[in-house]
Amino acid sequence: MSDLGDTLTAALGAANVLDGTSDAARDLAHDEALAVGHGTPAFVVRPGSTADVVAILDAARATGTPVVARGSGTGLSGGANAPDGAVVVAFDRLTDVVIDDLDHVAVVGPGVTLEQLDAAARAHGLTYPVRPGEQSASLGGTVATNAGGMHAVRYGVTRAHVVGLEAVLADGTVVRAGGRLAKVSAGYDVVQLLTGSEGTLALITEVTVRLQPHLPVRRTVLAPFADLATTTAAVARVVGSGLAPALCEYLDDPTMDAICAAADLSLGVPDEVRARADAYLVVELVGRRADRVEEDLAELGELLTAAGAPDVYVLPEGSARRLVEAREQTFWTIKARGADEIVDVVVPRSVMADFLTAARAAGSRYGSTVLGCGHIGDGNAHLAVFQPDPDALHATLHDVLAAGVALGGAVSGEHGVGRAKAAALAELGDPGALEVVRRVRAALDPHGLLNPGCSVS
Amino acid sequence: MSDLGDTLTAALGAANVLDGTSDAARDLAHDEALAVGHGTPAFVVRPGSTADVVAILDAARATGTPVVARGSGTGLSGGANAPDGAVVVAFDRLTDVVIDDLDHVAVVGPGVTLEQLDAAARAHGLTYPVRPGEQSASLGGTVATNAGGMHAVRYGVTRAHVVGLEAVLADGTVVRAGGRLAKVSAGYDVVQLLTGSEGTLALITEVTVRLQPHLPVRRTVLAPFADLATTTAAVARVVGSGLAPALCEYLDDPTMDAICAAADLSLGVPDEVRARADAYLVVELVGRRADRVEEDLAELGELLTAAGAPDVYVLPEGSARRLVEAREQTFWTIKARGADEIVDVVVPRSVMADFLTAARAAGSRYGSTVLGCGHIGDGNAHLAVFQPDPDALHATLHDVLAAGVALGGAVSGEHGVGRAKAAALAELGDPGALEVVRRVRAALDPHGLLNPGCSVS
Ligand SMILES: Cc1cc2nc3c(=O)[nH]c(=O)nc-3n(C[C@H](O)[C@H](O)[C@H](O)COP(=O)(O)OP(=O)(O)OC[C@H]3O[C@@H](n4cnc5c(N)ncnc54)[C@H](O)[C@@H]3O)c2cc1C
Ligand SMILES: Cc1cc2nc3c(=O)[nH]c(=O)nc-3n(C[C@H](O)[C@H](O)[C@H](O)COP(=O)(O)OP(=O)(O)OC[C@H]3O[C@@H](n4cnc5c(N)ncnc54)[C@H](O)[C@@H]3O)c2cc1C
Repeated sequence: MSDLGDTLTAALGAANVLDGTSDAARDLAHDEALAVGHGTPAFVVRPGSTADVVAILDAARATGTPVVARGSGTGLSGGANAPDGAVVVAFDRLTDVVIDDLDHVAVVGPGVTLEQLDAAARAHGLTYPVRPGEQSASLGGTVATNAGGMHAVRYGVTRAHVVGLEAVLADGTVVRAGGRLAKVSAGYDVVQLLTGSEGTLALITEVTVRLQPHLPVRRTVLAPFADLATTTAAVARVVGSGLAPALCEYLDDPTMDAICAAADLSLGVPDEVRARADAYLVVELVGRRADRVEEDLAELGELLTAAGAPDVYVLPEGSARRLVEAREQTFWTIKARGADEIVDVVVPRSVMADFLTAARAAGSRYGSTVLGCGHIGDGNAHLAVFQPDPDALHATLHDVLAAGVALGGAVSGEHGVGRAKAAALAELGDPGALEVVRRVRAALDPHGLLNPGCSVS
Repeated sequence: MSDLGDTLTAALGAANVLDGTSDAARDLAHDEALAVGHGTPAFVVRPGSTADVVAILDAARATGTPVVARGSGTGLSGGANAPDGAVVVAFDRLTDVVIDDLDHVAVVGPGVTLEQLDAAARAHGLTYPVRPGEQSASLGGTVATNAGGMHAVRYGVTRAHVVGLEAVLADGTVVRAGGRLAKVSAGYDVVQLLTGSEGTLALITEVTVRLQPHLPVRRTVLAPFADLATTTAAVARVVGSGLAPALCEYLDDPTMDAICAAADLSLGVPDEVRARADAYLVVELVGRRADRVEEDLAELGELLTAAGAPDVYVLPEGSARRLVEAREQTFWTIKARGADEIVDVVVPRSVMADFLTAARAAGSRYGSTVLGCGHIGDGNAHLAVFQPDPDALHATLHDVLAAGVALGGAVSGEHGVGRAKAAALAELGDPGALEVVRRVRAALDPHGLLNPGCSVS
């Protein structure tokens, strides 16, 4: 074993240092991105404490070894994909959960999953409302990517919930920022700086997040629309109504077909309505009291009808739950159907129809199929691209991202830059903002140890 | 006139370059902080465009002149206080307002006041809910301090609302970050990094903020409490109830007396109740529908009674409005009564009683009077300190801040660090977090031109 291996083993114990060529390590060397390669790490290590993380970084620094953080590996941008020879730091041993029901926060290890945290919060009548499709994602990973998901339209993305972090810089400095606090204005917000930094500025060793009161009542409607422009206009009315929906999703017709087939789900929409539908909105209302949610549901129905939905279907509880679950599983469904990449773009809500039209046109240009769904209440689309030829795939993805940026959007709404979009961001991002990002990265990690190749460099 | 003066005059026109010794310039050389000194600037300049701001920074850089941004000068930390010889950049000419009622955002110049923005939003049925006591504060200044205020308990502080910024770095680089977007995960969040940076990283030349649907119904209750511990426990229940109050303020008995006297306000609380009250909670509920707000009000009343309030007073609309206004004016009232400093501390909500007890004890130690009020729903206290002796004042302030930090809090919840708390933060802040802040500041402003002496250096 190398010097590095010896040092890591001495610090963490042999059980927590996997050889990078082992089968177990191979599984931990990449995330779920479809079109991003990865190498063979030197080691995968499993710290059990902040001191272990400091020791790992000390050893990596001494040997000039790149370090890649890994949560649950559910990312979709290749952010956790290891370059050859890297040390992958897997956080699955750091799983403490403390629920503080006076301050309504949780203090957790980065390896805790969303599912575990929400279950712990629910035992106190509280909830952690961040819900990207994959509840096995870790708190460390969701903070590092600033994950969003369906509930972001009501509750905001991860950054709206993180109030404290402990993290270790490349040089071994332990940083504690924020705390069990509702707000702070005491120096630059280091919590916000590290949130969304994808393992390139520091390794996160503890996360403090705000919890919300759990709202027991939820009701879901489905509304077909004849075209994208009408769908987009309806969304502005839903979001502006003050009804504060807990989700506001769109699915195009092929995607709706695919997920209903995959989940063996029938939603009671007559065939002739489906035949004329180009897109569907799914809107969920939540509340403390059933009577109010019912009233609001009626108001929502009227609003959607006035906005041009030919009919509005209030889903029975079972179907609603299964539809939302099937929507969360879209990635797996589309992957099983052979999608070559999933691309996440955010645009101003008002231009979503223009963006989707431009994205479809980009697909046609290169003979690619582009379809999808998204958190339309946030102006966020997740598009599946079917195109087996790598060059045509690349050209399609490029033009889709460029169309989003040209409309005032950004190359990622919630999946992060990772390795998938590092080049696109460098090309399409604002030069001034990229300059800030590069200077900050160089200031905190001058030797480029942390996740090289990920995000802007 | 100096070279610097000539360059500035050539770039901005003589009308927009004030000599620093003029009366007009003197008024613009400081904010409202009570116990922070300031010098005489070389010039006060009034840019009319982003290009003007670049020209000012070019001129300052060429001559090594410090640059201090100024919004409306309502800050309470001396952040806009000019050192001798500085160039003060006053943003009152950059006052464009564009309301986008599809995306529910406003794009505004940094010189726009909260009052102006909210009025423009209200014309579209929307509102900008950030409401620090002083509605004449500017968007640039409130972003730079991450201002909070009464509504933060429901809507969050300024950072929850800012989605886009244009700003100019010390070297003249123009940065555009974010946009009319609900969320982004594309490189570090430069919008969040600049929010709360108090003019030390960049000069903000345009701000994009999210707007909220305006909720027309508001009802306010007042509840006296016999002691701080009971008050604090009641707050956890109010915040955890799901009633989502739009404000949750506490006032200690002397502060309530003072503001009622100043506003000539009688709230209908019987003398014998007032005699036994140590503190008051003011809670406001808002909503779309009067019937629901009334129902919730009844629930809130029961909750407060169960939490130990001897009685709960639902205020008539006029009194409610006047009480909230009087609360917003507390700073002026307390200043008129001779307060020597106002200190803003944030702690975990659950330890507020311990903190206030420790703060009163710190006062007793040095013969100072410490009293106040605060956004208790956020764990945020604003304490007035009466102590004419500068050394005893300094010792009192130090111990109050140290008590907050020892309880897991921070030296500022919303007023910012400014010059008032730079030394306290350097002493009491987390060394790792301060290290990050220092490196970021040096990376973006290597020659230390921007607001030297403000915040961490
Ligand atoms: C079916 C499916 C649906 C999805 N839907 C959504 C969705 O709707 N919205 C959405 O936002 N995302 C979605 N995602 C992707 C989402 O980004 C990930 O689920 C999650 O954010 C990553 O968490 P993770 O623990 O798996 O992190 P990983 O994939 O392991 O890592 C993600 C990034 O974080 C870094 N990282 C991980 N842990 C740490 C740490 N402790 N310190 C520093 N850096 C760290 C890694 O280096 C990497 O750059 C979906 C994924 C799947 C598979
Ligand atoms: C009566 C009263 C009550 C208050 N109550 C509250 C309260 O409840 N909550 C709260 O949070 N605050 C409160 N404040 C203070 C609050 O911080 C300020 O009102 C406001 O945030 C500052 O805005 P301003 O435009 O006056 O900024 P200024 O005071 O002019 O400047 C504040 C800081 O921002 C910087 N700055 C200003 N403009 C720019 C720009 N364009 N680019 C870069 N930097 C810039 C300055 O350099 C300075 O560091 C209160 C103030 C008063 C007088």
